[in-house]
Amino acid sequence: MTFDVKLLVFLKDGILDTQGKAVAGSLKRLGFDAVKDVRVGKYIRLSLQADDQAAAEKAVAQMCSDLLVNDIIEDWSAEYEEGRR
Amino acid sequence: MTFDVKLLVFLKDGILDTQGKAVAGSLKRLGFDAVKDVRVGKYIRLSLQADDQAAAEKAVAQMCSDLLVNDIIEDWSAEYEEGRR
Repeated sequence: MTFDVKLLVFLKDGILDTQGKAVAGSLKRLGFDAVKDVRVGKYIRLSLQADDQAAAEKAVAQMCSDLLVNDIIEDWSAEYEEGRR
Repeated sequence: MTFDVKLLVFLKDGILDTQGKAVAGSLKRLGFDAVKDVRVGKYIRLSLQADDQAAAEKAVAQMCSDLLVNDIIEDWSAEYEEGRR
């Protein structure tokens, strides 16, 4: 089976997000005063062959631990869809 | 009202994703052969004061056009939740 995986990687709450602060500052300078708490992270889309969703979830967790996520400062969440691609 | 906005910014299909290719290559070298079509984009979370969801959507569209999205090569999608933060 092919799974379409949408992975969100973001800084843990409490970790200073310099990129988020920079974006928030720029938005304010552009007049968007109603914006608060900007946090910037990574959005990774991939397709994955796996026997079932549990196997896909296991593979994604391993990829996150090995490469995609710095688990000291980052958290992640993933959505799985039976692939169309 | 406060809206919790989850904004995904990603390269349009057909645009070469060098970051995605680099991640795919690293995953292959780590033995994740079942992975294909890796695309990397931005995940931006922010909270926004707005009268209603339509006003929030309008403000986000303007932010994307003014700063957050390069609409020549990028697409975006957003989810809105009445804010808890």
